[in-house]
Amino acid sequence: MKLDASAAVVLLSGGQDSTTCLVWAQRTFTTVRTLAIDYGQRHRIELKAAEEIAERAGVAHAVLPCDSFAVLGGNSLTGSQAVADGIDPETGLPNTFVPGRNLIFLTLAAAFAWKVRAANLVTGVCETDYSGYPDCRAETMAALQLALNKGMDAPFIIHTPLMHLSKAQTVIMARDIGALPLMAWSHTCYQGAVPPCGTCPACVLRAKGFLEAGIPDPLIERVGPSPR
Amino acid sequence: MKLDASAAVVLLSGGQDSTTCLVWAQRTFTTVRTLAIDYGQRHRIELKAAEEIAERAGVAHAVLPCDSFAVLGGNSLTGSQAVADGIDPETGLPNTFVPGRNLIFLTLAAAFAWKVRAANLVTGVCETDYSGYPDCRAETMAALQLALNKGMDAPFIIHTPLMHLSKAQTVIMARDIGALPLMAWSHTCYQGAVPPCGTCPACVLRAKGFLEAGIPDPLIERVGPSPR
Repeated sequence: MKLDASAAVVLLSGGQDSTTCLVWAQRTFTTVRTLAIDYGQRHRIELKAAEEIAERAGVAHAVLPCDSFAVLGGNSLTGSQAVADGIDPETGLPNTFVPGRNLIFLTLAAAFAWKVRAANLVTGVCETDYSGYPDCRAETMAALQLALNKGMDAPFIIHTPLMHLSKAQTVIMARDIGALPLMAWSHTCYQGAVPPCGTCPACVLRAKGFLEAGIPDPLIERVGPSPR
Repeated sequence: MKLDASAAVVLLSGGQDSTTCLVWAQRTFTTVRTLAIDYGQRHRIELKAAEEIAERAGVAHAVLPCDSFAVLGGNSLTGSQAVADGIDPETGLPNTFVPGRNLIFLTLAAAFAWKVRAANLVTGVCETDYSGYPDCRAETMAALQLALNKGMDAPFIIHTPLMHLSKAQTVIMARDIGALPLMAWSHTCYQGAVPPCGTCPACVLRAKGFLEAGIPDPLIERVGPSPR
């Protein structure tokens, strides 16, 4: 399949990292589209943030449903006796954890990109902050790119502009490429709160990144500070 | 993740090839489970055949939904102006074609196998009869296995016992390993017909395989011949 080497599909979750990737892609490629995966996120506000950001960026945005995760992250398939929100005694991970999530997201994104003839896939995965997740690693992305190229007979390139950056470095990059205005519309809080709760792990990580970068969070400037 | 090297998950579509793979897996591994993907098959009879076959084989069976394909195979996401059941002028493929389908199926199967701690994935893909589909090729499976191993940090092995067999050779193998009784309950017909229509491409390919192998189709023996 012949693909357009100047076209890209950005996996947009609505969070700060994928928002930064969108702006990076707009500076790198001629035609940019965004794709959100609706996998049953706890908070619909993430999908709304993605839509809002894509509209403000002026790019075509699509939402692809994927109802497999809700089932894979439950107990009905495996017949486990553990409680739905329990911890797997063997792995120490929540029962709702689905391994290889980014493999699925990127394969779905590649199938979508094939349909729109885009050669480039852009994702905000990062092995610095998420070293516990093997599906975020650079070597996983390299192996997946090969599988996608062979399995769809198409020369996709997976771009991971944040792969080796710390959260603070990502914030600095976002400022340098002009992504901060869009980031004011991103959503990170696990609690789905606006203003962000400020205490969940996602909020803490985000605040730490902006603090270390010495840059105010444009989301906080837009919606006001987290409650104390 | 530590997995059970004597346990396998078989992707069971309800067709003759995956039924043969199930019996092959039962002769090869200690613990065998089957997994069907409910991706919006045209005919629900395929999913029912898979369930029936798993029950008769005495293995645990699970069904995993995946609603992404219906959308990827439509026009709503890509905004194409072509009619829903049309032919893509560029590729000559139906608009409903979704590239890399087996990549998704196997990645979902791996996530499921991770949950049940099974190291082996078994699929009936075959590059002999489906040379047009790059996601059925041996080199695609090798690349995907590496991506799954790295992305889930788990030593999955993808087994493709039919990879290099013709349809007739698959029928002979099915006889030799004792899969014919189960194959009487398999479903192949694109029209969803029982007895099979006998004229759709799937029926023609199946009949040709049994004819060349010189073995009567146990499905025909069970439900009677196709109409003329």
